[in-house]
Amino acid sequence: MKPQATPQKNVYRYLDGKADGNGSMKDLLGGKGAGLAEMTLAGLPVPPGFTITTEICNRYYASGKQFPPGVWEEILAALAEVEQAFGKRFGNADDPLLVSVRSGAKFSMPGMMDTVLNLGLNDDTVVGLAAQTGNDRFAMDAYRRFIQMFGRIVLGIGGEKFDHAFDEAKRAKNCHLDTDLDAADLREIVARFKEIVQTETGDPFPTDPHRQLELAIRAVFDSWFGKRAVDYRRLNKIADDLGTAVNVVTMVFGNMGSDSGTGVAFTRNPSTGENELFGEYLTNAQGEDVVAGIRTPLKIAALRDEMPEVYEHFRQVALKLERHYKDVQDLEFTIERGKLWMLQTRNAKRTGTAAVRIAVDFVREGIISREEAILRVEPNQLDQLLHKMIDPKADITVLATGLPASPGAASGAVVFDPETAERRGSAGEKVILVRVETSPEDFHGMVKAEGILTARGGMTSHAAVVARGMGKCCVAGCGALAIDYDSASMHIGDQVIAEGDFITLDGSTGRVILGLAPLVEPKIGGEFKEFMGWVDEARTMRVRTNADTPNDAQVARGFGAEGIGLCRTEHMFFVGDRIDAVRQMIMVSSEYQRLVEEIGHLHTEIEKARNNPDRAADLEHELARAQERFVRPKELFTGALTKLLPMQREDFIGIFTAMDGFPVTIRLLDPPLHEFLPHTDEEIELLASKLNLPAETVHAKVEGLREANPMLGHRGCRLGIAYPEITEMQSRAIFEAAVHVKQKGFTVIPEVMIPLVGDVNELKLQEAIVRRVASEVMTETGVAIDYLVGTMIELPRAALTADKVATVAEFFSFGTNDLTQTTFGLSRDDAGSFLPMYVERKILKDDPFQVLDREGVGLLMRIGVDKGRSTRPKLKIGICGEHGGEPSSVEFCYGLGMDYVSCSPYRVPIARLAAAQAALAAKTTEGSTHSTK
Amino acid sequence: MKPQATPQKNVYRYLDGKADGNGSMKDLLGGKGAGLAEMTLAGLPVPPGFTITTEICNRYYASGKQFPPGVWEEILAALAEVEQAFGKRFGNADDPLLVSVRSGAKFSMPGMMDTVLNLGLNDDTVVGLAAQTGNDRFAMDAYRRFIQMFGRIVLGIGGEKFDHAFDEAKRAKNCHLDTDLDAADLREIVARFKEIVQTETGDPFPTDPHRQLELAIRAVFDSWFGKRAVDYRRLNKIADDLGTAVNVVTMVFGNMGSDSGTGVAFTRNPSTGENELFGEYLTNAQGEDVVAGIRTPLKIAALRDEMPEVYEHFRQVALKLERHYKDVQDLEFTIERGKLWMLQTRNAKRTGTAAVRIAVDFVREGIISREEAILRVEPNQLDQLLHKMIDPKADITVLATGLPASPGAASGAVVFDPETAERRGSAGEKVILVRVETSPEDFHGMVKAEGILTARGGMTSHAAVVARGMGKCCVAGCGALAIDYDSASMHIGDQVIAEGDFITLDGSTGRVILGLAPLVEPKIGGEFKEFMGWVDEARTMRVRTNADTPNDAQVARGFGAEGIGLCRTEHMFFVGDRIDAVRQMIMVSSEYQRLVEEIGHLHTEIEKARNNPDRAADLEHELARAQERFVRPKELFTGALTKLLPMQREDFIGIFTAMDGFPVTIRLLDPPLHEFLPHTDEEIELLASKLNLPAETVHAKVEGLREANPMLGHRGCRLGIAYPEITEMQSRAIFEAAVHVKQKGFTVIPEVMIPLVGDVNELKLQEAIVRRVASEVMTETGVAIDYLVGTMIELPRAALTADKVATVAEFFSFGTNDLTQTTFGLSRDDAGSFLPMYVERKILKDDPFQVLDREGVGLLMRIGVDKGRSTRPKLKIGICGEHGGEPSSVEFCYGLGMDYVSCSPYRVPIARLAAAQAALAAKTTEGSTHSTK
Repeated sequence: MKPQATPQKNVYRYLDGKADGNGSMKDLLGGKGAGLAEMTLAGLPVPPGFTITTEICNRYYASGKQFPPGVWEEILAALAEVEQAFGKRFGNADDPLLVSVRSGAKFSMPGMMDTVLNLGLNDDTVVGLAAQTGNDRFAMDAYRRFIQMFGRIVLGIGGEKFDHAFDEAKRAKNCHLDTDLDAADLREIVARFKEIVQTETGDPFPTDPHRQLELAIRAVFDSWFGKRAVDYRRLNKIADDLGTAVNVVTMVFGNMGSDSGTGVAFTRNPSTGENELFGEYLTNAQGEDVVAGIRTPLKIAALRDEMPEVYEHFRQVALKLERHYKDVQDLEFTIERGKLWMLQTRNAKRTGTAAVRIAVDFVREGIISREEAILRVEPNQLDQLLHKMIDPKADITVLATGLPASPGAASGAVVFDPETAERRGSAGEKVILVRVETSPEDFHGMVKAEGILTARGGMTSHAAVVARGMGKCCVAGCGALAIDYDSASMHIGDQVIAEGDFITLDGSTGRVILGLAPLVEPKIGGEFKEFMGWVDEARTMRVRTNADTPNDAQVARGFGAEGIGLCRTEHMFFVGDRIDAVRQMIMVSSEYQRLVEEIGHLHTEIEKARNNPDRAADLEHELARAQERFVRPKELFTGALTKLLPMQREDFIGIFTAMDGFPVTIRLLDPPLHEFLPHTDEEIELLASKLNLPAETVHAKVEGLREANPMLGHRGCRLGIAYPEITEMQSRAIFEAAVHVKQKGFTVIPEVMIPLVGDVNELKLQEAIVRRVASEVMTETGVAIDYLVGTMIELPRAALTADKVATVAEFFSFGTNDLTQTTFGLSRDDAGSFLPMYVERKILKDDPFQVLDREGVGLLMRIGVDKGRSTRPKLKIGICGEHGGEPSSVEFCYGLGMDYVSCSPYRVPIARLAAAQAALAAKTTEGSTHSTK
Repeated sequence: MKPQATPQKNVYRYLDGKADGNGSMKDLLGGKGAGLAEMTLAGLPVPPGFTITTEICNRYYASGKQFPPGVWEEILAALAEVEQAFGKRFGNADDPLLVSVRSGAKFSMPGMMDTVLNLGLNDDTVVGLAAQTGNDRFAMDAYRRFIQMFGRIVLGIGGEKFDHAFDEAKRAKNCHLDTDLDAADLREIVARFKEIVQTETGDPFPTDPHRQLELAIRAVFDSWFGKRAVDYRRLNKIADDLGTAVNVVTMVFGNMGSDSGTGVAFTRNPSTGENELFGEYLTNAQGEDVVAGIRTPLKIAALRDEMPEVYEHFRQVALKLERHYKDVQDLEFTIERGKLWMLQTRNAKRTGTAAVRIAVDFVREGIISREEAILRVEPNQLDQLLHKMIDPKADITVLATGLPASPGAASGAVVFDPETAERRGSAGEKVILVRVETSPEDFHGMVKAEGILTARGGMTSHAAVVARGMGKCCVAGCGALAIDYDSASMHIGDQVIAEGDFITLDGSTGRVILGLAPLVEPKIGGEFKEFMGWVDEARTMRVRTNADTPNDAQVARGFGAEGIGLCRTEHMFFVGDRIDAVRQMIMVSSEYQRLVEEIGHLHTEIEKARNNPDRAADLEHELARAQERFVRPKELFTGALTKLLPMQREDFIGIFTAMDGFPVTIRLLDPPLHEFLPHTDEEIELLASKLNLPAETVHAKVEGLREANPMLGHRGCRLGIAYPEITEMQSRAIFEAAVHVKQKGFTVIPEVMIPLVGDVNELKLQEAIVRRVASEVMTETGVAIDYLVGTMIELPRAALTADKVATVAEFFSFGTNDLTQTTFGLSRDDAGSFLPMYVERKILKDDPFQVLDREGVGLLMRIGVDKGRSTRPKLKIGICGEHGGEPSSVEFCYGLGMDYVSCSPYRVPIARLAAAQAALAAKTTEGSTHSTK
C-alpha cells in the first residue's frame, strides 16, 4: 500500500500492519477510526477495515445527502483491499466476508447510531457462513440478528415489531429461551422478519451486500443530524460541523469451535495495580455471551493451559500495547480458529490504590518519567487510599442515598442526639449520629460518633464541613429520612429505624445501608510514600490544613500539611462548659456595649463643658450613675472573657506545639452571637437558671439576636469592632500561648486573621488591637514573637478594594465559601432546594461550592490578587475555603500565583498532588509556548 | 501699600481697601485670612489687620518652635500699618489699639485654638479704654475676660480656676448675675486673676502688649499639633503639613453707646427667598449678647429708623457683597459709634424653597447664568418643596427619634395592625400605622395610613422603601418603641401610647412627636417650574420612576418621570383576595414540581426502553399513576395562575396607560415564596380552612419554605426556573395588556426584566419563555409589540460576567440595593445593629444603602457596564436601586454612562436636578481639560 497523503483522500485503510491514518487523526477519522489505525500501525492483529472521513459526512450534507463523486469508488477499492488482506470476498456465497458498520465522531457520542453487525449476509452468503463455521444454527441466528438490526437501525423500523414476531415464534414452539430455537425455527423467523421489512418499508429486504453497505453508510451519516445526536451536541456544546466518520470493519467470530473464544482483559490488575494479566474469557463464544453472563467465564490465566500459543501471543500483544500507550490497557479480543484478533484497546480505569502502584511501577520499569507518573493519578482517587470502605464483595441493602459529604465508611448503632452519641461513644460503642441537620452545639456528639447522617444540608453544610475536617464519614442531605426526635426513631420509606438499630454509611457514595456492612481498612503501601515524595518534588505551592484542634493538626501533619491555613476559634467555645461563659457574655453584651458608649459619650461631653461648671457637674453626676450601672454588666462581660482566656490559650498551645516550625493562621471569632445561644425552651430555661435570670429575659435576648439573614449580619470582624474586648482576649490568648510554646523550644509562627473585612478601616481597627496586645505580651514576658496580621478575603468588596486592604494586611486568605455565597447571592444552607436542579440541567456546570467558579468568583479573586500585590508586592496569599482541597480549584489557585492552599486534613494529599500537577502543566504550557516561538 | 508678590512675604495685610492677599489664597492664608482680604478688596469696611502665613507655621516647627528670622519684624511693621490705618496705637495708654488673635487653617477645624479677644489690655491701656468708651465697668469687664481667656488659651491654665474665683467673688458680694458686679468688683477680680496666673505659671501676667501678641501667636502655632487638632485631622484625613495661619485683627466694639450696635443679616430672606434684607440687631451690644438671648433683638428694618445713614450704608454693602460673591450672603456686622464694620460674610444657608426662588431671581436679575443657577440648588433640598412639614413655629414634644426614612410629616391616630389601618383609614380617619417592622402583607394598611412608624429596620427596610414609593411619611428603626400588639399599645420611655392616641411623625428628621402637631403644606411656586425647565435643558440622562401602581405612575409623571424603571409585580399579589390564589399555588408548588420532574423522567425512561417492551410497559404503568396523582396539584397550581392572569393584566393595563409613550420596565416575580405565606397561628388556620387542608399541612409548608438566609435563597429568577408557569403567566399578562393598550391608541413600550440573574444560562431559559409567550400573544391578536428583555444586575456575579449576560440581555438595570448587600455581605434588615456605629465612627463614610459606595459597588458597576457594552455596544443601562434618587449616586451613574436613573416618584425632581448638575460638571471638566491641552 502506497502512502497517499493527498488532501483528496476520503477513505483511510488499515490492514496488513499498515494504515493510511494514525491515532492523532481524530478530527478526520473520529476516535474509533484513529484508534483502529493506531493499533494496526503498532503491529497488532486488528481485523482489516477502513474509515470514511468526517469530511465526507459534511460534504454529504452539503450536496443534499449525496456521496461526493468518486467516494463510492474509493470505498469499493478499499473493500477490495480488505478482501485481499482477509482472504474472503464480500457477497461470496462460499466464504463470505462480513463487516460491521459503525459511526465514530471525534468525541464519543452515546446519542449516535448503534453498530450494524454481520453486514453482507443474505440467503446465499448465509449458506457459506454455515458451511464455513459448520454451524447451521449459528449462521441462521446471525442472519436473523442482522435483519433485525439493519431493519431497526438502517431502515428505521420500530424494534418492537421484530421483538413481537420473535416472541410469537417462541410461544408457537413453546420455548422459554432463545437457545431453544433451532436452525429451522430461525429460518422461519428470518422469513417473517423479511415480511416485516416488506410491510414496513414497501420494499423487499436488500439482499445485495453492496446495497446493504451503501444504505448502512448513509444511515450513519443521517444519524449525525438525528434528534438524539443533535440534543446531545447541544447539551455538550459540540459543534455540528465536526461530522461523523464511518468505520467498516471485517467481522471475526469467537464462536467457531473450541479453538475460538472471546474475552476482556487488563494488562495489570485494575484493583491492586499488580503487574499481572487480569481478565476473563469464554471459549467458543461471542462478546455478547460474556456480557450476558449466561456462562461463567474463565480467568485469563486458564487460557495459558487451553491455548498456550494464543496466550503467549496475547501476552506479547498486551505488553506491546502497554508500552505503546505507556499505560495500562483495557483490551477486548476474539480468537477465531486459533487466531487472535484485537478489537479494542483503551487506557484502563483503575482504583486509587492501583493508580498509585501502577504509576510507581511504570517509573521503576522505565516506561514513564516521574513527572508523567504524577500526571497519571487523578487527585481525587487518593481519597480511597485514606479511608475505610465497604467491602465491595458484600451483599448490602441500600435504604436511601444522600450526598457523599465526607468520604469513608462507618457502621454502628443509630443515635439521634449528641448527648447520647457522646455517652455511648465514650463508653466504647460505635454510634452513628443522625440529625435533621447539625449545628455547633452538636459538636461534642459528632466527635464521639463513627459517622454522621443528616436529613438536610448540602456538601458544605455544618455536618459536612466538620466531618471532613475530622476525616469522619458523613452522608448529608438525605431527604428520604423522616426523623422524629421525640420517639428517637426515623422512617425511611416503610422502614423504621429506632435508636440502637444498626446502619452503615458510605460517605464516598452517599449510601445509607441497613445493618452492619463489612468494612475494609485502607492500605497505604510504600508506593504511596514514594509517589508523594515525587509529588512534593514537583510541587511549588504550599499545602496547609484547616484544623481547629491539636489532634486535627497532628493528623494533617501526617498527611504532609505544611502549616494551618485556617484555625477556627469558635468551635473551641463549645468545648466542655466554656459555652456557659460565652453565653453569660452574650447575655449582657448589648447592655455592656450601650453603657460603654454612654460613658464614652459622657466623657466627651464633660470635656466640652469644661467652661460650663454647672453642666459639667450635671454630667459628672450622670457619669457616676452610668458607671454604677456599668459595674454588673462589666463584671459579667469581662468576667466571662477572663474565664475564656486561659482555655483559649491552652487550645493555642496545643496547636502551636503540633505545628512546630510551620505557620498557624488563627481566625478570630466569626459566627453571629446568636449561634452560641440555646434555641429550645428547655435549653433556654436551663441557661436562665444557670445565669440566675428570668427565662423571659433569656428568651427575649435569643429573639433579639435573631437575624433575617445571619450570613450577612453581625458577625466576623463586625463583632470585634462592637466588642473590642473579644479581639483583645483572643489576641492575648494567641500571644501568651506563642510565648509559652517558644519558651519550650518550639518554633511558632502565628498569623492572626481578621474575618469578614469589607473595608480597610475595619481591618485597621482590629489590627491595632492585635498589635497592641502582642507588644504588651512581648513586653510582659520579654519574649519576641514574629507574627503576621492579615485578613480573609470573603466578601466581594474586600477583593474589589484589595489594594487598600493590603496596605494593612500582611496576608490574604481567600474564604471562597463565603465569597461564593456573596458573589452568587446564594446561601449554601438554602441552595439545596434548587442548586441540584441547576447542576442537573447544566445551568451551572458544577456546584460552585464544590468546584470553584472561575468565571465569577475566580475573576474577583484575580482582581483581589492583582490589586493586593499592587500595593504590597510580597503579600502572602492563600485559600482556606473548601475549594482548597478540590483539584480543579487548586489548579486555578496555582494559576493565580497563590503561596498556598489549605484544606481539611484528609484532603491534604489530594491538594498536594493537584498542586504538583498544576505546576507540571504550567511547565508544559511554558515549554510549548517556547517551542512555538 | 506696594504690592509685594515675592515668595518671601510672610505677613499679609488688609487695610484701607487694599490687601496683600485675596480670596483664592486659602492654602497660604487659611480660610479666614483669605476671606478678610477678599472683603477688604471688595471695598468693604473691614477692621484692619494682617495674616501670618501657614508657611511660617511649618517653618516655626521646622526650626524647633522659633519664629523664622525677620518674621517678627514683619509683624511689627504690619502692626504699625494697622495702627496707622485705624488711628490708634497698640499699648497706647490713652487710646489703645486692641486686637483679636485667631487661628485659621485651609479647612475649618473645630478642634483648633479658640480666639483671644481684647489683646493689648493691661493696667495702663484699660484706663484708656475706659476713658475712650466712657464706661469704666465695660473696660474692666473686658480686661478680666482677656486675662481669663489669655490665661486659659495661651498660658494653658485650667479654666475652672478662673471660674471658681469669679463665683467666689459673686458669692462674697451676694450676686446672682454677672451684671450685678460693678467696676470695683471687677477690678478686684482682675487682681485675683493675676494672682492665679502668677501661682499657676510662676510668672506674673504679661503686661507688655507685644509680649502678649508674641505669646498668642506662638499659642496658635502650638495648637496645630495639639491633641484635639491632630485627632481631628486624622479623622478627617487632613495633612499635617498644611499648617495654620494666624489672624491679627483690630477690635471694634458695638457696645459704645446708643450710636453703636451689632447684628446678623441675610441679603435675602433665607426661608422664602424674597429679595429683602432679613436679620436682627441690638443697639449698644456685643456679638455675644445677641447670641446669649438676654435682650430681644430688633428686626433689621428698624435700623432704618434708628440710624438711617448706617442702614443705607449697610444696604449698599449687602448689595455689593451679593454681587461680589454672586450669592446670598450671611453677614455679621458691628456699628462702633456710628461706623459700620463688617466682621464676616459667607454664602447663606437657605431652605429649598428659597434656594429655587433665589436661583431663578438671580438669573432674572442677570447676576448668574441658568447653568450657574442649576448648580446653586442642592438637589436634596427639593424634597422640602414636595412634602408637608411640621410648622417650624409650633411647640412640640419629641417622644423619640428614629431614622428619617421617608420625608414629609403626618399626624393621626395610632393603629397597630394593617386591618385597623385599612378600616379606619377608609372611613376617612387619619391614622399612623405603627409596626415592629412591615412586610408585604401590611401593604393594604400602609396604603390607607397617613404615615408609618416602625421599631426596626433601616433606611431601605420594606417600610422605608414602600413609603418613599408612595411619597408617604415614614420614620423607621425607632428603637425606643416597645410595641405590644396584644394590648394594642406601645411604650416610649415612660410614655404609654394606646391605639387611637394621636402622634405626629416628621419623616424628614425622624422625630416622633406627641399629639397632633400643626403641619404646613408645601408651596410649589412658578419659580420651581421655570427652574426645572432649565434643569431639563441641561440634563442628558433620563429619569424614570419606580412605580407599582397606575397612581404612582401618574404622580411620578407629574414630577417629570420619563418612564418606569422598576415596576415590582409582587406587591400586586397582595391586593384584595389575590393572595388567596397565590397561597393556593404555593401550597402545592413542591408537589407540583416534583411530579413534573417525575413525569418528565418517566417519559425519558420510556424513550430509552423502546427496545425493552416489558420495562416499557412497567414504565407506562408508572407514568399513568403519576399522571393520576398529578391531576389535583396541577389543577390547583395552574388554576391559581389562571385566576391571577386577568388581575395582573389589569394592573399592567393601568400602568401602561398611565405611562403612554414612555418605556415601562416590569420585573418578574422576585421575593421568596415564603413571604407570601401567613406567619401567625391564626392566619395559618384561616388559610388552612380556606384551602380545606389540615392546619398542620399548612404549618409544615410554612416551615418547609423557611430559609436560613432568604435574601440568598430561592427567589428571583430561581423561582421562574423552578416554576416556568409563573414566568409564563406574567409574560402573558404583560403582552395581553400591551396589546389591549396599543389597540386603544396608546404607545406602549414594555421592557421585561428578569431578576437576580447570576449566570447567563438562567437568563436564557427565562428569556426563551418570555419571547415564546410574546410571539404567541402577537400571533393570537395580530398586534405587534416592540419590547425588550433584559435583566437586573444585582449580584456580583452578574456584573463580573456581564459580557456573557449581555449576549442575551437587551438592557441592564443595576439593582444597587441587593448589589450593595451582596458586595458588602451586609443584610439591610440586620445592619441596624452595627451600621449606624460604622457611620458614626467613620469606618464607612456613608451608609452604603443611602449613598452608593463608589469604591466597591461602584467598581463592580463599572466592570458590569464595560463588559456589558463590550459584547453589546448599544446596551441600554439604568439603575433602579434606591440610589437612583440620591444626588451623589446619580452623579456617579452619569459618569458610568448610564442611559437613565430610576427612583421613587417623589425623588424624581431631585434626580432630574442631580443629573443636570452631573452633566454641567462634566462639561466644566471637559472644558478645563481642553484648556490645559
